[in-house]
Amino acid sequence: MNRVYRLVMDCPDQVGIVAKVSTFIADYHGTITEANHHADVDNGWFYMRNEILASSIPVDIEEFKQAFGALATQLNMQWRLSDSQHPKRVALLCSKDSHCLSDILNRWHSGDLACDIACVISNHENLRGLVEWYGIPFHLVPVDLANKSLHFETIDRLIQAAQCDTIVLARYMQILPRSFCEQHAGKIINIHHSFLPSFIGAKPYHQAFLRGVKLIGATCHYVTGDLDAGPIIDQDVARISHRHDVTDMVRLGKDVEKLVLARGLHQHLEDRIIIHDNKTIILD
Amino acid sequence: MNRVYRLVMDCPDQVGIVAKVSTFIADYHGTITEANHHADVDNGWFYMRNEILASSIPVDIEEFKQAFGALATQLNMQWRLSDSQHPKRVALLCSKDSHCLSDILNRWHSGDLACDIACVISNHENLRGLVEWYGIPFHLVPVDLANKSLHFETIDRLIQAAQCDTIVLARYMQILPRSFCEQHAGKIINIHHSFLPSFIGAKPYHQAFLRGVKLIGATCHYVTGDLDAGPIIDQDVARISHRHDVTDMVRLGKDVEKLVLARGLHQHLEDRIIIHDNKTIILD
Amino acid sequence: MNRVYRLVMDCPDQVGIVAKVSTFIADYHGTITEANHHADVDNGWFYMRNEILASSIPVDIEEFKQAFGALATQLNMQWRLSDSQHPKRVALLCSKDSHCLSDILNRWHSGDLACDIACVISNHENLRGLVEWYGIPFHLVPVDLANKSLHFETIDRLIQAAQCDTIVLARYMQILPRSFCEQHAGKIINIHHSFLPSFIGAKPYHQAFLRGVKLIGATCHYVTGDLDAGPIIDQDVARISHRHDVTDMVRLGKDVEKLVLARGLHQHLEDRIIIHDNKTIILD
Amino acid sequence: MNRVYRLVMDCPDQVGIVAKVSTFIADYHGTITEANHHADVDNGWFYMRNEILASSIPVDIEEFKQAFGALATQLNMQWRLSDSQHPKRVALLCSKDSHCLSDILNRWHSGDLACDIACVISNHENLRGLVEWYGIPFHLVPVDLANKSLHFETIDRLIQAAQCDTIVLARYMQILPRSFCEQHAGKIINIHHSFLPSFIGAKPYHQAFLRGVKLIGATCHYVTGDLDAGPIIDQDVARISHRHDVTDMVRLGKDVEKLVLARGLHQHLEDRIIIHDNKTIILD
Repeated sequence: MNRVYRLVMDCPDQVGIVAKVSTFIADYHGTITEANHHADVDNGWFYMRNEILASSIPVDIEEFKQAFGALATQLNMQWRLSDSQHPKRVALLCSKDSHCLSDILNRWHSGDLACDIACVISNHENLRGLVEWYGIPFHLVPVDLANKSLHFETIDRLIQAAQCDTIVLARYMQILPRSFCEQHAGKIINIHHSFLPSFIGAKPYHQAFLRGVKLIGATCHYVTGDLDAGPIIDQDVARISHRHDVTDMVRLGKDVEKLVLARGLHQHLEDRIIIHDNKTIILD
Repeated sequence: MNRVYRLVMDCPDQVGIVAKVSTFIADYHGTITEANHHADVDNGWFYMRNEILASSIPVDIEEFKQAFGALATQLNMQWRLSDSQHPKRVALLCSKDSHCLSDILNRWHSGDLACDIACVISNHENLRGLVEWYGIPFHLVPVDLANKSLHFETIDRLIQAAQCDTIVLARYMQILPRSFCEQHAGKIINIHHSFLPSFIGAKPYHQAFLRGVKLIGATCHYVTGDLDAGPIIDQDVARISHRHDVTDMVRLGKDVEKLVLARGLHQHLEDRIIIHDNKTIILD
Repeated sequence: MNRVYRLVMDCPDQVGIVAKVSTFIADYHGTITEANHHADVDNGWFYMRNEILASSIPVDIEEFKQAFGALATQLNMQWRLSDSQHPKRVALLCSKDSHCLSDILNRWHSGDLACDIACVISNHENLRGLVEWYGIPFHLVPVDLANKSLHFETIDRLIQAAQCDTIVLARYMQILPRSFCEQHAGKIINIHHSFLPSFIGAKPYHQAFLRGVKLIGATCHYVTGDLDAGPIIDQDVARISHRHDVTDMVRLGKDVEKLVLARGLHQHLEDRIIIHDNKTIILD
Repeated sequence: MNRVYRLVMDCPDQVGIVAKVSTFIADYHGTITEANHHADVDNGWFYMRNEILASSIPVDIEEFKQAFGALATQLNMQWRLSDSQHPKRVALLCSKDSHCLSDILNRWHSGDLACDIACVISNHENLRGLVEWYGIPFHLVPVDLANKSLHFETIDRLIQAAQCDTIVLARYMQILPRSFCEQHAGKIINIHHSFLPSFIGAKPYHQAFLRGVKLIGATCHYVTGDLDAGPIIDQDVARISHRHDVTDMVRLGKDVEKLVLARGLHQHLEDRIIIHDNKTIILD
């Protein structure tokens, strides 16, 4: 895999943005290996992502960044430039269920998820062995119902210590405090086991069973302070029928959950997602 | 297509139902071309559908029915026996949009929907020509906002006159009065342009756009007095992205709507659906 | 719908193409409403499509084209610029089956396919009424087995006379002569009723039934002189089981055929497709 | 999970089979929790599967079997009766790739695959640790190119020693000898990484890339002596585009492979599959 820079930006739309940005890149002899734009005509907003071959840029990344910063200011951009040589550092939070965790660990181990998995944090002990077989630190942080804020302070400290920039809730069954969500805005990815906005909250498969739906779903989204209401990254569904009871739905739903979480995480790790107005623009 | 009888029944579950019913059929030398059972263990309820080759039964259908009635009473069954030689008679209700109507008419014309389409009723004139090209009576019943109940009395009279047993709302944009729904319970099929229970009511694609979902859907369901809350027959979805605005979603959603409505109607016409506790059991 | 120019191009990849093209457009004050690039790193080839708001360009389209031509020559580009105000002119060829034809006509009539349907040509008379109801000329060109080349000369003359630039085989069951395919290269779109490259040639559903596949498919592709081997535009599948015989597969397959053909045609009409090395690059 | 007997049978079709079988079960007071029939009218063959609550049968399983054997002989049946208390014993064969293996192990560990995994056999050492973490014996059987038959004799001995009745090729990259296939007919399940019958043999993703397909697929099938030509159990697909190279296709294909293999294996383990004329009838 070639080393690439990922230049991701959004700004008010106007004539000439692409010209200016691509001329800037060309002036540095940058080879663009992938480019994606989106102009939201209704909102007058522009989104762009460029993948640039690192070896084609003759200056170091800091100098390149500084130079681009001047252009970005002129265009009122929010922007970031990431380097594939410094993959994101992920903390995985889980409870007892292993399907999402095991799936992510295997993808990472197989080289299909470009990240460092810095640690796994769980309120249960049962998955320690699997995690440690993969050579990843496992932290047990039991839920203390009398002191939930202490619980999340501990988790926060572990995440900071491991220098994580991405937090994945791999079927972590605790509701995060609003302050925690806001502090890590845009960095916490959850998998909810329903096709949102249907069946928000607890026991979505039971809710789906009672309603008699013919498809069940799962939703990968960024976590905000509002339960299951954050920007949606990906969704998918599986077909069920009257022959499936809640137990079957739980089993079949796992396939959708792990697939949708992995796909959403993949987009996040490659810096393909821009959040705007509680929605995601996914530049792939 | 061979003439078949469709014997559809449900009753409290107990040992020996299949034995009794299939022995009954075998005693009449009935050739079963298709059989489907479902035992809902949690509710203790049993569902069954048999397709029997009409030519294999040596007595006429009325005699066969009468004999089965005795067994059905003994087993506390609700049941019906339909004859493929007497297809259902369908009234199609539509407004201005033609995609579902045109799709159903073409399927019927191609021999892929085993029904008689007795009439089309609309509150707009624009589709008369198409309907009449297919040789089907078209009735304009404009909405009279001052007197909505009169409107539905007229429709009801047309449906009775055409001896329809099935009413299909092919993107008919009026809300039916509760009394109308109850009078035709289990006989009115609607297509709702969202993945229910998400986005009930008006303008579901606008609601979906605002929420930023990544899949849009459609739901075919029986109509009850509660808006968009009746038993679901079929659902499906289509993938969208940030590049799709509401207009695109409307366009892409049409494909899901017409497919899901056609599939649901097909199951209804072949007497494959049993409604129980606001859910459908589909014996296919 | 705003009037847009669609500027579609491909050329050998090099640093600075996007910069040059987008600077060119910006110099004309062009508002880009949509842009898509693709760099095929392995083959060293670059593909690009820009949608430009026509009203933002202060010169007329011919002058703009001429100016761009100079840049295109410099970059060794193949390119085209189309104008949404001059939609493509489509000839539909069909045989007896109506599902694809009826579907396309309804989409066009509903404003969902941005084209002019110039004529329908068939070797059967049965669909004349439907076509003429839509106000489209219908030409019967019966197959003359003794003189197939005359048959296609007649069709070619009708297509020329109607000034068509796109030919859609909407389940047209005749094999086109190689010369006809080559003469209209990149302009003939076919729907094949299998998931290519499985089941090339005649009776693909029978082939699929014999093999016992669990999904059936359809493929929309450009026609070349090699049967069912042209560049693939779109494909999709539907689930089947042992309970479906060939008749069921034909019925269920129709849904896939009409959807895939419509999607492929839609991409073609919006000038989103570039053909390269018998594959399609679809810039959407 | 209640203990159930699974009575699976097929025979020439005639009037009264269901009556006789269900009367037989009812005479033993058997509670049928699930029943599926299929009559293949064209071939005159009948297929049936009943799940019977073990606790409802007052005699032991051997006596029940013996009694049913008499009826089965009378009806010319092939049949089997399995007991959910004695799950199948599975040998997993793999090479270096871990995605299917890891997925199956996790499903089994989570209680979602009702089987005993008796052993894992591989021609590579790399997955030993993971397998042993799950407490399953791991056997390295390196490929000896000079003596392939010895290789499979060793494997066969391990399978016999572990008393396996099901062999799963979880991306096992060796072609099995015909004799091995025939000896274990109906017991070897393979996952092929293409949508069969497209792209038989080696490197199917490369073949798919060259052809420019828009969907890639995977096929779970029983292994016969003819390469990739055995009875298909399940298939599925994933969408790709011109932006995906072979590496991407391999990565995306893994999701389809592991899902399709798991679904196919699930059907096999619940005794839902009957093989007939190189096709599968799946009674679910």
